Amino acid sequence: MVRQERAVRTREALIRSAAEVFHHEGFTAASLTLISSRAGVSNGALHFHFASKAVLADAVEHAAAGVLQTITGPGPGPGPGPGPGSGPGSGSGHGSGRGPGSGAGAGGRRDTSTLQRLVDATHELARRLQQDVVLRAGFELSGEAGRPARTDLRLRWHTWVTAMVDAAERRGELRESVAREGVVAAVVAVTVGLEVLGTRDEAWLSRRTVAQFWRLLLPALAPGPALGALEAHGSFPR
Amino acid sequence: MVRQERAVRTREALIRSAAEVFHHEGFTAASLTLISSRAGVSNGALHFHFASKAVLADAVEHAAAGVLQTITGPGPGPGPGPGPGSGPGSGSGHGSGRGPGSGAGAGGRRDTSTLQRLVDATHELARRLQQDVVLRAGFELSGEAGRPARTDLRLRWHTWVTAMVDAAERRGELRESVAREGVVAAVVAVTVGLEVLGTRDEAWLSRRTVAQFWRLLLPALAPGPALGALEAHGSFPR
Repeated sequence: MVRQERAVRTREALIRSAAEVFHHEGFTAASLTLISSRAGVSNGALHFHFASKAVLADAVEHAAAGVLQTITGPGPGPGPGPGPGSGPGSGSGHGSGRGPGSGAGAGGRRDTSTLQRLVDATHELARRLQQDVVLRAGFELSGEAGRPARTDLRLRWHTWVTAMVDAAERRGELRESVAREGVVAAVVAVTVGLEVLGTRDEAWLSRRTVAQFWRLLLPALAPGPALGALEAHGSFPR
Repeated sequence: MVRQERAVRTREALIRSAAEVFHHEGFTAASLTLISSRAGVSNGALHFHFASKAVLADAVEHAAAGVLQTITGPGPGPGPGPGPGSGPGSGSGHGSGRGPGSGAGAGGRRDTSTLQRLVDATHELARRLQQDVVLRAGFELSGEAGRPARTDLRLRWHTWVTAMVDAAERRGELRESVAREGVVAAVVAVTVGLEVLGTRDEAWLSRRTVAQFWRLLLPALAPGPALGALEAHGSFPR
């Protein structure tokens, strides 16, 4: 292994180890010695890569933001819809930079409705929070008392959900009576609630629980004809 | 002031001061010296009342549980409804132990539907989380990494919401198609999400935000005739 490759691997191992220790003990209590020993490197190596615990936490958040990006995809895009500027060429190129099988982020799926992409992304977020300690620790760092989040993942998620709900409205996927702002608040609050509750009990992050929420909410959001095509349990096989 | 009264006041001041410091710095980083000085007492006085920071945190959670109890009231009670054992005498005595004006917990209001009591309690919880640092810190301690919650407030809230939704179903206040379990999960996840998001931005705990959620959800829960009587923004004046 060449030297640079080794450095990259050490850095990744430290980020993962830090995420585990932050998750179990919180940022404040986390010990750098434990983090380096769990990563199988010396304290000196840790300090070579990360000047302080705060810098290491920033790196965990940054890595988690990368995972979140693979879940959400790049955003709603112009997409098909009744608004000006829509057309057959829109929606192309969304999949750039994302490999096949990179999750439910539906950037590459041109036929999926915006609401379905939102549903799928909440499922994928819940699934990845159970499996990926870096993503989980990144979200937890967003709420850590006494530490301003540099890359606030909950805020990023909020921004993405807002863009998706706005796009759904533009594309006529929402009932006219629905207040867009209320939909955003409900979806963001529920997902953050599931994320937080899931720390103590993973059942909160199960596909079943996420689907239950959407089964309640979708009939309030989508007009009758569109409702039948929406899958509350996600439109992807598992 | 007699000696015992002074002791009670000192204890209360320490619990409040601890809640403020836990809220701002987290449990792990919180300094006992800062807590005692903010309460205007000596370190010795703190240790006289609380043997350790963990004991002090337990006391904050216990005090917060008391506040939560005034918000929720004692539970749904047998109440009127189609189930066996219901009758005109049911629902009495719910107000015992709660003074007038003790919040939106609707234990003393016999005419309010169970769903409306649930709506009102979420509003009252959001309002009190903004104003009462002991309640806020109590909820935050439920999620503190590396510290098992002794009085888990999120769990208590979950238990109460479950009892209310069960009662609403028993009393025929839910649509037949609605899965009770999904309603419980949605309400608990949303309230915990608002609580967590509200730490960084109080707009999440506004009456407006809570009402938006209920405006979306209530039509999915309540049968048509009952829906008109339900107030998403809460049935109490403010």
